[in-house]
Amino acid sequence: MRVTGLLLSVPLLSAIIMGEAGDRQIVCAFIVPMIICLSLGTTLSMIKPSDKTLYAKEGIVIVGVGWIVVSVIGALPLTIGTLGRENFLDLSFIDWLFESVSGFTTTGSSILHATSNGHQIDLLYACGCRSILLWRSFMHWIGGMGVLVFVLAMLPSLSGASGLHLMKQESTGPTVGKLVSKMSSTARILYLIYAIMTAVEIVMLSLSLLFDGTMNVFHAFVLSFGTAGTGGFAATSASLASHGLYVQVVVTVFMFLFGINFNLYFCLLMGKIKDVLKSEELRLYSALMLIAIITISLNVWASLGSIIDSYSNYANALGEATFTVVSLMTSTGYAIADFTVWPSLSQGALIAVMFIGACSGSTGGGFKCSRFLILVKSAIMRCRKVVNPRAVFTVKMDGKKIDDEVTAGVNGYFVIYALILLLATFVIMIDVNALGADSPIITAFTTSLTCLNNVGPGMTAIVGPNGSFFAFNGGIKILLSVLMLFGRLEIYPILLLISPRTYSRKA
Amino acid sequence: MRVTGLLLSVPLLSAIIMGEAGDRQIVCAFIVPMIICLSLGTTLSMIKPSDKTLYAKEGIVIVGVGWIVVSVIGALPLTIGTLGRENFLDLSFIDWLFESVSGFTTTGSSILHATSNGHQIDLLYACGCRSILLWRSFMHWIGGMGVLVFVLAMLPSLSGASGLHLMKQESTGPTVGKLVSKMSSTARILYLIYAIMTAVEIVMLSLSLLFDGTMNVFHAFVLSFGTAGTGGFAATSASLASHGLYVQVVVTVFMFLFGINFNLYFCLLMGKIKDVLKSEELRLYSALMLIAIITISLNVWASLGSIIDSYSNYANALGEATFTVVSLMTSTGYAIADFTVWPSLSQGALIAVMFIGACSGSTGGGFKCSRFLILVKSAIMRCRKVVNPRAVFTVKMDGKKIDDEVTAGVNGYFVIYALILLLATFVIMIDVNALGADSPIITAFTTSLTCLNNVGPGMTAIVGPNGSFFAFNGGIKILLSVLMLFGRLEIYPILLLISPRTYSRKA
Repeated sequence: MRVTGLLLSVPLLSAIIMGEAGDRQIVCAFIVPMIICLSLGTTLSMIKPSDKTLYAKEGIVIVGVGWIVVSVIGALPLTIGTLGRENFLDLSFIDWLFESVSGFTTTGSSILHATSNGHQIDLLYACGCRSILLWRSFMHWIGGMGVLVFVLAMLPSLSGASGLHLMKQESTGPTVGKLVSKMSSTARILYLIYAIMTAVEIVMLSLSLLFDGTMNVFHAFVLSFGTAGTGGFAATSASLASHGLYVQVVVTVFMFLFGINFNLYFCLLMGKIKDVLKSEELRLYSALMLIAIITISLNVWASLGSIIDSYSNYANALGEATFTVVSLMTSTGYAIADFTVWPSLSQGALIAVMFIGACSGSTGGGFKCSRFLILVKSAIMRCRKVVNPRAVFTVKMDGKKIDDEVTAGVNGYFVIYALILLLATFVIMIDVNALGADSPIITAFTTSLTCLNNVGPGMTAIVGPNGSFFAFNGGIKILLSVLMLFGRLEIYPILLLISPRTYSRKA
Repeated sequence: MRVTGLLLSVPLLSAIIMGEAGDRQIVCAFIVPMIICLSLGTTLSMIKPSDKTLYAKEGIVIVGVGWIVVSVIGALPLTIGTLGRENFLDLSFIDWLFESVSGFTTTGSSILHATSNGHQIDLLYACGCRSILLWRSFMHWIGGMGVLVFVLAMLPSLSGASGLHLMKQESTGPTVGKLVSKMSSTARILYLIYAIMTAVEIVMLSLSLLFDGTMNVFHAFVLSFGTAGTGGFAATSASLASHGLYVQVVVTVFMFLFGINFNLYFCLLMGKIKDVLKSEELRLYSALMLIAIITISLNVWASLGSIIDSYSNYANALGEATFTVVSLMTSTGYAIADFTVWPSLSQGALIAVMFIGACSGSTGGGFKCSRFLILVKSAIMRCRKVVNPRAVFTVKMDGKKIDDEVTAGVNGYFVIYALILLLATFVIMIDVNALGADSPIITAFTTSLTCLNNVGPGMTAIVGPNGSFFAFNGGIKILLSVLMLFGRLEIYPILLLISPRTYSRKA
């Protein structure tokens, strides 16, 4: 039964990916994995399952295995396309696998790094491997859409109770299921919104061709894919710093927009503007962002103004703070400034917004604003309960009562989340020690956090916006890949996959 | 009604403290606060409350206010006794208040610091202010006993449901209430165990007089009080490093013993040795300690063996690791080595044991082993529930089923705990930045952690075993004092006190 679920997912996923990849295929690197995929998919789909019913466990396993298979397939074009370029690419399959997982999970952490000849991203761009870079960014777009498709459409239709259970935790905004009767059509609408928004961004970025010499249509596509999926891969080593102000502003606005719960766009289309403005999650998301921007810009301006010339101008500090906060909070990870040199209060604030993350139901990662809101509200409720043990308190959001089960679920999720985060930090620390990084604990912690939250860069030089994850050893790269999958799929599917209990015969 | 509760607590507490303090009073500094206390207490107790019934809120408020009043009173002898010694003591009342709170909450963080003439602790010792140092340590002993008295005796008798609610979370070991029918007599038995164990330690430490020139009866008392309350104040600036091996071993053993749930000693007296050995909390406590000791000793030996001579001998590294782990895990905070120079993996492990802390029902602080166990078990249960949403899972401990309410309570406590920890870290970071410490984020985080968990030292030079909390500004010292009270009283009472809702007219 479990195998059945697994088999069905392969052709499904390969069709989605390859239908697009084939279209953009320039180098032959894409043909080989395409053939592997299509033949494997066809073969597997010919094996008819004896029982078509799928239960909770199968549904979750499908998602988990599906993502791993897709990641391996995604790494193939990168590996094959760069064969014979060992003169500047000292990368193994594990490196490319990391890059692929980072792409699909929309993390945006890269193993491409600076060499004596220049940065590998720039070298790839120069040597005619643009399609490789485009594929990297396109993985973001698939991954960003993927989570919507999976969480909002695939899971419930496949697995009933379990999918709904996961749904409950996710959709704390205006309830989707009630607006459109069928889950699959809801997913289609969200998919459409996603595609249209990406298209608008591509057009708006392409407009900059008229006055910005650093831009071209290729960059417009790469940046739009990266923004839409809140991923963070760019086609230049300097990330957004190599582009002009107009491009930076457009990307900032779209990062913010893609970090909002997509259900709200649906409400907007339905003309329910009041509901959108009343959304507590949107308010929290905007408020936290604003607080972080003001704190950080003032802190950077006051502390570094006298040391670094560009920060003596407050407008400049404000601009960089705005871009960085939006980029890290939405878990995109684009950078226009090296925030690893910022004062520690600012770094602390950045770590906090990285942790909280974007809205649920968006393409962004992190713990999610709505969960954070429920967490804080239930904490307050618990304190009130200590005073009046016999009184009945309920956690409300957007005026609706939230089920105790959901509150307990969010609290439990936080605990599991924190345990994984800290456990991973320890393992990473062993390797960080060997690397001799400046502040090993911060390096290990932010590496763990940035991967689990699908952000991209960490807080110290080695893993910062100018750093690279190449320096870690193979085992750690695999661990980080698992963390990224944990973060993307919200822990449970992957946890289930690596648990030995799943493979026992008992249901 | 609320005021009533408050009034009753003052004479009660002052009697406990001053009955002892008067006895040991050497300098006149103790007389003044005694007179203030006794007269205030008598006056207040004469105001008869119109309604003698006490509800949950009042019970919690009593504890909270009581601890604050006691802390202020405890600071008086320190302040008055050191008047006129400004030549080497540059301390304000806020400093002494911090010291007093640190004493009563058994944290052991000190504002006494090294000056150009020598360390203030050594100067106080030399100038005939030993009684001041004894009072500092005696506060530990009162505080350590206090939490037993309050949590196990006062709270339930005062406030019924709420006290029991708090009790439920605390007593996850063998149920106390069932062994002895009355709460107050249970408390008396625990109090007796506590006193006897302290006496045994005093005697054992005094034995070292025969062969250890650095010891005297005064030190035996100070160290025993500090160990019993898992506090950490010593009467020499070098803490335990200035004493011989025998003293260090005795203190290590007693730190371990005072970190165990006192209910287990009761079981032991009742001859239920099997129950004690089966206690999952005790097993976790010992296992975690052992793992941490082995990890750290190997890490220190391997990394520092070639740099620092004393660590080239594994036995030496093992000894220092053992002492440090036991000291930090039981939240005592005595030191024989400067662990701020240890490699970061070791520091990470120390932070982890500091966080988890001792057993519930002991004098130690921290999150508590039993809570951690429930946390992990409920996390595993939650994952299993995702697979089988309709199956019913229960969390078991020591073979008994744990109520869902308790599990939810522990999860909620963890959330509140983490939120306070991180919020405080941010505030502290502002000041740490001004101080120009080496690694501001680690400094701020471990300062917040060490105060909230009542441990004592932090992980960087400025707040480490050779550092002092004197460097922080007044506001931060007050914040840290509040954190220590939060940690000691397990958050709720103090949270209630600082919440504006408590002072509104609505019940």
